[in-house]
Amino acid sequence: MENKTVYTHKVQYYETDKMGITHHSNYVRWMEEARVDFLAKAGLDYAALEAEGLISAVVKISCDFRRPTTFPEEIAIYTAVEEFKGATFVFAYKMENSGGTEVFSGRSVHAFLGSDGRPVNVKKKFPEIYEKLMKLAPDGTQA
Amino acid sequence: MENKTVYTHKVQYYETDKMGITHHSNYVRWMEEARVDFLAKAGLDYAALEAEGLISAVVKISCDFRRPTTFPEEIAIYTAVEEFKGATFVFAYKMENSGGTEVFSGRSVHAFLGSDGRPVNVKKKFPEIYEKLMKLAPDGTQA
Amino acid sequence: MENKTVYTHKVQYYETDKMGITHHSNYVRWMEEARVDFLAKAGLDYAALEAEGLISAVVKISCDFRRPTTFPEEIAIYTAVEEFKGATFVFAYKMENSGGTEVFSGRSVHAFLGSDGRPVNVKKKFPEIYEKLMKLAPDGTQA
Amino acid sequence: MENKTVYTHKVQYYETDKMGITHHSNYVRWMEEARVDFLAKAGLDYAALEAEGLISAVVKISCDFRRPTTFPEEIAIYTAVEEFKGATFVFAYKMENSGGTEVFSGRSVHAFLGSDGRPVNVKKKFPEIYEKLMKLAPDGTQA
Repeated sequence: MENKTVYTHKVQYYETDKMGITHHSNYVRWMEEARVDFLAKAGLDYAALEAEGLISAVVKISCDFRRPTTFPEEIAIYTAVEEFKGATFVFAYKMENSGGTEVFSGRSVHAFLGSDGRPVNVKKKFPEIYEKLMKLAPDGTQA
Repeated sequence: MENKTVYTHKVQYYETDKMGITHHSNYVRWMEEARVDFLAKAGLDYAALEAEGLISAVVKISCDFRRPTTFPEEIAIYTAVEEFKGATFVFAYKMENSGGTEVFSGRSVHAFLGSDGRPVNVKKKFPEIYEKLMKLAPDGTQA
Repeated sequence: MENKTVYTHKVQYYETDKMGITHHSNYVRWMEEARVDFLAKAGLDYAALEAEGLISAVVKISCDFRRPTTFPEEIAIYTAVEEFKGATFVFAYKMENSGGTEVFSGRSVHAFLGSDGRPVNVKKKFPEIYEKLMKLAPDGTQA
Repeated sequence: MENKTVYTHKVQYYETDKMGITHHSNYVRWMEEARVDFLAKAGLDYAALEAEGLISAVVKISCDFRRPTTFPEEIAIYTAVEEFKGATFVFAYKMENSGGTEVFSGRSVHAFLGSDGRPVNVKKKFPEIYEKLMKLAPDGTQA
């Protein structure tokens, strides 16, 4: 994964369940945390994008739970852009525990929507944002 | 508690924590579930109120955790209006497990705000809503 | 989908996000709610299974978010067993809003583990549970 | 507040609700995050305490929501021990936004239980832990 960044999430007590491990729904939330952090590091403030009328809707996610984690582990989350085609954006995630063991891998697909809720041509409508996004995309995946 | 209604919440697996019991933060969410249900039964659709520009902000809550609960218990939540003064609304909650044992009691204080975020005189601005709210209030607490 | 059941989840206010819609992570939780309900209807009490030492770990999930939903919509969740092979179980989910429009489809893969955390031969170790699970499986998918 | 520490929580997108602000239930979770951090800084690893058979049950909480917060604000959480009497522990919390405005104040009451679920005399049963807890307590509040 190129253009990847690392983000750390500390498992919270309230994220565990009665099996004694992190409830699986929380990984979906950590994907979001890592994605927001990834975009911020690329100069793309998520809240600012929304304020400008550019919304990113989650279209699909897939999750592979490889190893359980639990409170109070520190999880390293590696995020990368896997694909960027016009109005669609694919992120890939890998998570490791402090011992370096992969505990999770996942993917999320996003569609850029305008404030009217319809797919938006980012290149035309938001050229400055498009440029920043392009820098994140792996070579040859852009439309 | 007069004017009280009962609402049932089934404890979900994802609401438990590694201690094997319901994480305490969830009771605050169940208070909201029960409150929304209480208002709906009084003909006050929460989403409709918001659509009309009347927002109810949570100002204070207090919670007394008396007995642990866990998945998959059914919890009966009794909700009542304790006080209603102009722009302020106080709800009281009691929760019981299926054996009839009290597991929780709590209270929430709400302020009615207009869409500008400032306290609103419900009686003047939303007379029809005011009338319905008044019917919920215990005698003698209204301003 | 054969052997399917329907479960209803009412979107809660606390499940929405600042985009005004249900946060996508909640659908993963609703999948769990529907799965637990599905198993209970088949005479398989999830808490009882755990008490007997049979744990079901979530191995994979995939989610297709087709239409946004929001508070206070009622979502019908259709759950079915797609595959059952020894220690692995695949569930498929479809969710519809009150207008009958499909808003979500997803899938979850589960592995049966013993209390030691290792895959367990359900047929050998838990024959009665195996029999009930077999009745849920679509023809010809069992090992 | 003496013996206080500061902990930072960044408001996540998934913590907001359709009102555009942090859902109030999350502050209860942040209190826990800050408390765990506070104890860790005092050499009291929460997971280690549980492993030794000392459980801390939340008995009461109260919350004062003073100002709304939202994604992606950074919230400074000040935690202090307000009282420590035998098996009971009271924490006080103040939260500030990045502008230094107080957005929240709250309190939580905890009881120390043994692995049998009954109140435990920390001083007798866990003298080393007791000593560390005593250092956190404000003068004159200990039993």
